Amino acid sequence: MRGRLAVVGLGMIGGSVAWAARLRGVVREVVGVARRAEVVREALERGVVDRASTRLEEVRGAELVVLAVHLGATGQLARQLTSLVGPNGVVTDVGSVKAPVVEELEGLFGGRFVGGHPIAGTERSGLGAANPELFQGRRVVLTPTARTDPEALRRVEALWEGLGAEVVRMDPGLHDRLLASLSHLPHLVAYALVLCQLRLHGPEDVLRLSGGGLRDFTRIAASHPAMWRDICLANREEVLRSLDAFERSLAELRRAIQNADGQALRDAFALAKQLREGMR
Amino acid sequence: MRGRLAVVGLGMIGGSVAWAARLRGVVREVVGVARRAEVVREALERGVVDRASTRLEEVRGAELVVLAVHLGATGQLARQLTSLVGPNGVVTDVGSVKAPVVEELEGLFGGRFVGGHPIAGTERSGLGAANPELFQGRRVVLTPTARTDPEALRRVEALWEGLGAEVVRMDPGLHDRLLASLSHLPHLVAYALVLCQLRLHGPEDVLRLSGGGLRDFTRIAASHPAMWRDICLANREEVLRSLDAFERSLAELRRAIQNADGQALRDAFALAKQLREGMR
Repeated sequence: MRGRLAVVGLGMIGGSVAWAARLRGVVREVVGVARRAEVVREALERGVVDRASTRLEEVRGAELVVLAVHLGATGQLARQLTSLVGPNGVVTDVGSVKAPVVEELEGLFGGRFVGGHPIAGTERSGLGAANPELFQGRRVVLTPTARTDPEALRRVEALWEGLGAEVVRMDPGLHDRLLASLSHLPHLVAYALVLCQLRLHGPEDVLRLSGGGLRDFTRIAASHPAMWRDICLANREEVLRSLDAFERSLAELRRAIQNADGQALRDAFALAKQLREGMR
Repeated sequence: MRGRLAVVGLGMIGGSVAWAARLRGVVREVVGVARRAEVVREALERGVVDRASTRLEEVRGAELVVLAVHLGATGQLARQLTSLVGPNGVVTDVGSVKAPVVEELEGLFGGRFVGGHPIAGTERSGLGAANPELFQGRRVVLTPTARTDPEALRRVEALWEGLGAEVVRMDPGLHDRLLASLSHLPHLVAYALVLCQLRLHGPEDVLRLSGGGLRDFTRIAASHPAMWRDICLANREEVLRSLDAFERSLAELRRAIQNADGQALRDAFALAKQLREGMR
């Protein structure tokens, strides 16, 4: 790409996209837009972008616009952008849920919108957590549809490949189904694991709970609350479907414990161990 | 301690105890007992022990005997040892559940048994995973009772402190309650998280499931199946109590998702994040 990349939202993901594109020379110029003036200042000071502003108008003339705001804010932002993105501009996003976003944004930008999801999140958030190597060797799912302009898809693929990522194409609905069980369900479970400690112990005891155990297993419960609220609501049906399956598996283990059925427990644990060890 | 340490069971924990005690010169001599001849050979070859045998009689004359077999095998082993441990011998164990073990082994050895649990497990097992630095800076819970001989307790404490661990004394019942929620419940949940993938996807899809997400959160589902069967059954009531609390917390999150109650979800996630970040 020879033109200008605009990144709207300079949190961990948006900041990392902008920074990596700039350091790797993937585009001629990187423009960042953030809501808060102090984020704009920090992005300029740290060299994350060439130019930055709190004004959305800065995206004018960009060849590619990356929407990197929270899922719940993406629709409204996209509506504001329709008059600012030129007829040759391509729009993509980085949200963790794809089907509803693709539907809404194709309605606004037609074949020039390409849904995207870099599988590179951590429990951290904000520009302070941005890292220009974040996407190196990671997968990025793109969710083109029959409507997608092939040139728009190529442009978005070129960006991610330029940042060191491996691009995987997938149907938006399949993406949401897979991510519900691979990512959204584990987050819910980690949140519930932490919360249930309050039912079992007093608040001071929970904070005193020591050692590797629970702390290691629930790292992701420190993830951003509003972001995960948005994800759970946007992918509601698939998340509930994953939750059903999880609750059935847990109920089987509970029954085996209640019945002191050692054989059933051992078999279930052995199957899980085998599956886990085969997972890539 | 100036005498002989006997370690029965040369898996990850027993092997690490023997090896660390030998390298650090905590005792004069380390004797290892394992069921399988090839484990005895490997322990000798790698310098994990001074002497090793498949014969339980080798524990005779030991000042301190560490039982490091699986929880389900501890009772039977202890009964075989009663005639072999001398009147001044002290016995301790390393099991993940304490109340039933303490009750049974105090019945056999009186005040000369001291329950112990090094909080240093991983998903690995076997002598190949032994590591003489495993206990450095880790906590070891000892669960003395009113019956415990103070000299026996001192001897067991001296061993663990000699291996670099920090000793914490705790009531056996409190240990089991805390560990149920801190460790046993997270293991069950990880096993269920892996198993439910089979309800959602075909076996090949499960194995293809990619990326950090689920894989990181379910590392512990690769733990030893028979060991975790024993733990769940030995700590059955506390595990079921933790499971109840977890299911109630998960049901609250499910309800908020079903009702699209973003405020309730955000509040719950924010509370979990705050608790998680305060955990030591």
